[in-house]
Amino acid sequence: MRHWEVIEGHLATPRGFRGAAMAAGIKKAAGALDLALIASDAPETTAAGTFTTNRVAAAPVEVSRAHLEASHGRARAIVVNSGNANACTGREGLRTAQETTRAAAKLLGAEPEEVLVASTGVIGVPLKLELISKKLPTLTAKLSVENAAAVARAIMTTDTFPKSCVLRSEVQGQAVHLAGIAKGAGMIHPRMATMLSFITTDVVVGPRMLQSTLRAVVDASFNRVTVDGDTSTNDTVLALASGLAGITVRPGNESRAWFLAGLTQLCQTLAQMIARDGEGAKKLVTVEVRGARRPSDAERIARAIANSPLVKTALAGSDPNWGRILCAAGYSGARFDPAKVDIQVNDFYLCKRGLDAGFDEAAARKELDRKELTVRLDLHQGEGTARIWTCDFTRDYIDINASYRT
Amino acid sequence: MRHWEVIEGHLATPRGFRGAAMAAGIKKAAGALDLALIASDAPETTAAGTFTTNRVAAAPVEVSRAHLEASHGRARAIVVNSGNANACTGREGLRTAQETTRAAAKLLGAEPEEVLVASTGVIGVPLKLELISKKLPTLTAKLSVENAAAVARAIMTTDTFPKSCVLRSEVQGQAVHLAGIAKGAGMIHPRMATMLSFITTDVVVGPRMLQSTLRAVVDASFNRVTVDGDTSTNDTVLALASGLAGITVRPGNESRAWFLAGLTQLCQTLAQMIARDGEGAKKLVTVEVRGARRPSDAERIARAIANSPLVKTALAGSDPNWGRILCAAGYSGARFDPAKVDIQVNDFYLCKRGLDAGFDEAAARKELDRKELTVRLDLHQGEGTARIWTCDFTRDYIDINASYRT
Repeated sequence: MRHWEVIEGHLATPRGFRGAAMAAGIKKAAGALDLALIASDAPETTAAGTFTTNRVAAAPVEVSRAHLEASHGRARAIVVNSGNANACTGREGLRTAQETTRAAAKLLGAEPEEVLVASTGVIGVPLKLELISKKLPTLTAKLSVENAAAVARAIMTTDTFPKSCVLRSEVQGQAVHLAGIAKGAGMIHPRMATMLSFITTDVVVGPRMLQSTLRAVVDASFNRVTVDGDTSTNDTVLALASGLAGITVRPGNESRAWFLAGLTQLCQTLAQMIARDGEGAKKLVTVEVRGARRPSDAERIARAIANSPLVKTALAGSDPNWGRILCAAGYSGARFDPAKVDIQVNDFYLCKRGLDAGFDEAAARKELDRKELTVRLDLHQGEGTARIWTCDFTRDYIDINASYRT
Repeated sequence: MRHWEVIEGHLATPRGFRGAAMAAGIKKAAGALDLALIASDAPETTAAGTFTTNRVAAAPVEVSRAHLEASHGRARAIVVNSGNANACTGREGLRTAQETTRAAAKLLGAEPEEVLVASTGVIGVPLKLELISKKLPTLTAKLSVENAAAVARAIMTTDTFPKSCVLRSEVQGQAVHLAGIAKGAGMIHPRMATMLSFITTDVVVGPRMLQSTLRAVVDASFNRVTVDGDTSTNDTVLALASGLAGITVRPGNESRAWFLAGLTQLCQTLAQMIARDGEGAKKLVTVEVRGARRPSDAERIARAIANSPLVKTALAGSDPNWGRILCAAGYSGARFDPAKVDIQVNDFYLCKRGLDAGFDEAAARKELDRKELTVRLDLHQGEGTARIWTCDFTRDYIDINASYRT
């Protein structure tokens, strides 16, 4: 299968896209980038999206979901703001989101249904339409390939670095691109738990194929990063495909596997950046479970471990407290025999068959001191596997917790 | 119905009980109380217990569960240690727990099945039998009514104060007592999430009635305190009834309602003490949900709110961020219409029909500044209600989070 390589770039590296960002005064900090526009110049651009499962969905989520349906998976632009989530804002909030798409559509010569919106920030505070509508003409005028680089910064809230990834592949001598940006979800010190990601590509892909591929990839990437458990009102992943590379992804074809592989690599890279940027996090932790009776059991156990404050504080303090890991597996709801479980950090055994492996404490701490580490469980009870990304719990959480065991 | 009044006392205030505690060297701190014995002098003492649902149950949980079954709900003593959970310790751990019951039974002239055990502390480290067996003769010799007062301190781990409650009622001129002690579960800074509670009474109650009443009461008290989500390997509630007050609790009788009310008051008092002593907690928070389609929906919503780090940091900072409360309700899994929801702190409205209630910020902060407060949701969609106790999230969690909204 053709390879995807990481290259420098931004959302407009795939052909057909332009972008721009500016300070619209939505964030409190003067001059902070808080409004961005991503636009495609290709009239046949296809679009797909996945959204929060929260029953209290923000206005932009409602509007984008409706537009994707009304346009049958076509879109020309995404308007995104940070600083205000436009959630729990009632009819007025819906109107603001709708008017934003209308204003942008008019400026871009598109239909309102072809404009998608996303917001992140404080909940329950009205988002003033005029802050956006006044700035949209300037923002549209600023649209360019180069200015697309700023969009990754404009969607940041508590993130400490912009999250961006661009991939390139070559098919029949033709370059194809996939680009993505994301903003993270607070983990240890959650303020705004919203996760947003925007993806562009110049591949030719039909809206249904794009939607089904995106859904599968989001499940294998963003949905495998644990946050604080607070599923946001605004979580949104949107993908636009301009088709300008002229290479087509077809169902049941090898091209589908190639595209799936690229999109998975893109989104997993962004997902790991989100985990690494968990508020206060110092370590990127991968939790791998194998040998479960069913994949769903493996996933339950991996999620319980990755979400356990007890486990995460021990990881922060490099404390080889494997009892906490087994305890979290025990309350996950999965069926397993604790007496068969092996637990490793990287390749180092902490627990064998449910009992202390008799390890050297200093050597274990050295393994746990790594900035990127893997917690591995082998249940020895079947073929089910799962992988989840998370981060450690640091700060005063540590002061009390981390050195408890020793 | 006859009233239960709070009185001074301890586990041996109910007739027939004695207790003792000592330092056995299980905890690292020299001289720290870590071993205790609760004994009944009445041969007909009945017993009941509820235990952790964690698949990885500690050795003392396995042994106590088996003993209650083998004895058909009879017991004469409880041996409890802090400092080591005797969990994930394999066959050797089971043997330690069993030998502990055998040694205590011999000293007390009882059967091993009539002795129950409980442990709390570090997981995965062998608990040395000789630390306990050597001290049991001295501990037994120290058994007295007065020395029972020390047991509440001996079971403490991260608790900042001992948790104890004693109730008295009068039936036919006869005094009846209920006494209980508990140790809490770490919440913000979890180290040992174990919850233990031991209850004594001098009422006459059959083992099946005691078990069914205890189960119902635990569901309405200890199981309504949110912890960090880490269900311990060791959670245990044990109740002993000496029968020496000569007043009998009978099925289908008014006496059942009277006993249920007393046990509920006892356990809810202890549960609130646990919430108030959440590590770092400054506020006792009650979450009340009403108007849900079903009680299970109300409970889901109440638990989601009480467990949300976003909500709890806002409460710590007295930030009237009702959007986070509605957001947590939204991802609880319960079905409801967000546009019908009212949210109050105490009697103060923050949100009406899903929108900002237009409240005075300073007045809202004043309500939130109270040391004990209630978050109320009315869904206006049915008759389902639920109540959960929790605490706020303080410390550096606050520095970053609490003043975010304003």
